[in-house]
Amino acid sequence: MKLNPNYSNLKESYLFAEVADRTAKFAAAHPEMKIIKLGIGDVTLPVCRAAVEAGVKAAQQMGEQSAFRGYGPYEGYEFLREKIRAYYAARGVMHGLDEIFVSDGAKSDVSGILDLFDRDNTVLVPNPVYPVYVDSNVMDGRKIVYASGTEENGFLPLPDRKVKADIIYICSPNNPTGAAYDKEGLKKWVDYAVENKAVILFDAAYEFFISDKSLPHSIYEIEGAKQCAIEICSFSKTAGFTGVRLGYMVIPKALDGGKPNGMWFRRQSTKYNGASYIVQRMGEAVLTEQGLKQVGENVSKYMKNAALISDTLSKTGVWHTGGVNSPYIWLKCPGGDSWKFFDRLLCVGVVGTPGAGFGENGEGYFRLTAFNTYDNTLEAMLRLEKMLG
Amino acid sequence: MKLNPNYSNLKESYLFAEVADRTAKFAAAHPEMKIIKLGIGDVTLPVCRAAVEAGVKAAQQMGEQSAFRGYGPYEGYEFLREKIRAYYAARGVMHGLDEIFVSDGAKSDVSGILDLFDRDNTVLVPNPVYPVYVDSNVMDGRKIVYASGTEENGFLPLPDRKVKADIIYICSPNNPTGAAYDKEGLKKWVDYAVENKAVILFDAAYEFFISDKSLPHSIYEIEGAKQCAIEICSFSKTAGFTGVRLGYMVIPKALDGGKPNGMWFRRQSTKYNGASYIVQRMGEAVLTEQGLKQVGENVSKYMKNAALISDTLSKTGVWHTGGVNSPYIWLKCPGGDSWKFFDRLLCVGVVGTPGAGFGENGEGYFRLTAFNTYDNTLEAMLRLEKMLG
Repeated sequence: MKLNPNYSNLKESYLFAEVADRTAKFAAAHPEMKIIKLGIGDVTLPVCRAAVEAGVKAAQQMGEQSAFRGYGPYEGYEFLREKIRAYYAARGVMHGLDEIFVSDGAKSDVSGILDLFDRDNTVLVPNPVYPVYVDSNVMDGRKIVYASGTEENGFLPLPDRKVKADIIYICSPNNPTGAAYDKEGLKKWVDYAVENKAVILFDAAYEFFISDKSLPHSIYEIEGAKQCAIEICSFSKTAGFTGVRLGYMVIPKALDGGKPNGMWFRRQSTKYNGASYIVQRMGEAVLTEQGLKQVGENVSKYMKNAALISDTLSKTGVWHTGGVNSPYIWLKCPGGDSWKFFDRLLCVGVVGTPGAGFGENGEGYFRLTAFNTYDNTLEAMLRLEKMLG
Repeated sequence: MKLNPNYSNLKESYLFAEVADRTAKFAAAHPEMKIIKLGIGDVTLPVCRAAVEAGVKAAQQMGEQSAFRGYGPYEGYEFLREKIRAYYAARGVMHGLDEIFVSDGAKSDVSGILDLFDRDNTVLVPNPVYPVYVDSNVMDGRKIVYASGTEENGFLPLPDRKVKADIIYICSPNNPTGAAYDKEGLKKWVDYAVENKAVILFDAAYEFFISDKSLPHSIYEIEGAKQCAIEICSFSKTAGFTGVRLGYMVIPKALDGGKPNGMWFRRQSTKYNGASYIVQRMGEAVLTEQGLKQVGENVSKYMKNAALISDTLSKTGVWHTGGVNSPYIWLKCPGGDSWKFFDRLLCVGVVGTPGAGFGENGEGYFRLTAFNTYDNTLEAMLRLEKMLG
């Protein structure tokens, strides 16, 4: 038996291990200091009441002969897909029920969707980037090219017509930079994809954090997108479902004559047996009026922290992006080096994430997140201000 | 963008659609007749009390700040892996915690594990077979050869040393035939795999249905198996979790110097974010003393139906296998043709599954399942007996 040789081309990331290691050493040397973690990439507030109640009820139903459910539809229950359709429709984006596929999360979809594409395709990935896009393509042996995010373009690279790509990843609002494309920017990508017969994999995991009313939440708000884009969405950050596990994907029938849509159904019926009924009922509850209000309150709490971080950085003259339409704030390290800034910040008991871990273009930048409490975020910002001051 | 060309080599299965179609037509023509479905491949009894209570509690915890859980470990929570380890240990099979990987189900694992193997491997699949093994390899473009299950070998083919294979699927107790290997049979496969440096993918989804105490539940009960086998397990049939979604896989570190074990961790950390916390708590509850007793009671109910079917077939002189260590009964169609027997049985209002749908060798055979109620199964058997005269 031959193993997949592409795995040997994967780069090991020591980023989070190194962050943990340096933090632990500092904590041991300074037991008196309260350490505040602004590197957290996970939600911290509990799941909303509507979802919890739905989960309790669904678990109970599984124990009743009359309400018990066995295998569900591969593509997800209609009760949930109807709610997802309505969620889009509220923003004027219309989908057929058979264009919506429910899953256990965006990470499974972002990598699983690659099954549909030949290994002989060139993949375009922004840099800096969520490492999953790169690694899952390295595992398949696809050629990868990068679109350079820089301070000059606000970490929102636009297509370069000299570069030929077949599969394009866009994450907006972006992880790790927090930057979000406007309609004009996305239109350029859609036009490029249509011209090149490329497919855009649009990761909308953070769309619920958008506060600027002019920004698109979905790529389908852009004309022509249904001909070239697949959209991947998640309940993880929207509803605090990182441990509950639920996501969904839209594959329009207008894309490539409906072939990817049909292939995905075939793929899911072969390789997947649907998301948990209990979890789908929780997702349905999130997408009710009451549920959306409750998750909105949680997101507002995070965004208050994000605004505080962003305001502090502005006040101290530190260049940054994100934090307005995203729980992530991406800042230019005063002094230049990512790890030097990490150590400097650690000396005042605040932990963040060096940008170098997200790709070459991340060097010299730093990620802070809004997922800690307000009080901790406030204290961290006072320390940061003093440190820079 | 180029689509994956291998998808065009997939064969469409019209089996269940054709079954549904013929059944609907018959029902419309005979509204007075009660139709009994013994083609069901899904559990029908509700989830046990222990699991329901654990699910309710876990859903509630997700709503409490102090108990809330975000991203879980990629490989599954230790509380569940400890229980799985103990479940194996009770049968004398010892695993390290880091050899156990929790997932949302065996179907995801059976197909996902192929990521670790080069496309240039020859796959050996029994015939008749669970179609997922074939289809997921066709999607990757691997060469497939078959091991022939026949009445003569009791649908338990043994290795043919003239055939070279790199990846070997074994499902025991088998879907669709219900036949289960003894230790001697499995030992022959393990020896063959070790000799050929092949890997066995052992699908143990039905192990909990084994009643014959001499039969192995796990391939690791066979000496040498840790050097050549990956075992895939499921809560679906054991605990009625087909809609709850939970499975696990064992990848021994003794296999190929630990490479597949490490690669799978890398694969899961890139392409998966763990099974739902709520569902993992339900699985933990199943594997307690109380939980195992409760799911055992459900399985006993199904096995009472299986015994009834098997006894009826014996009494009427119909050759069959399965039904003793499996919820499936595989019978030789009196008259020969699978679809003719389907129609004949449908005339007395009983629906089963023609064996032809599970591969060439299934032609002339027929699958009945034990997942209906006892009363319905009894009535179906009375009708069958009368029909066969």
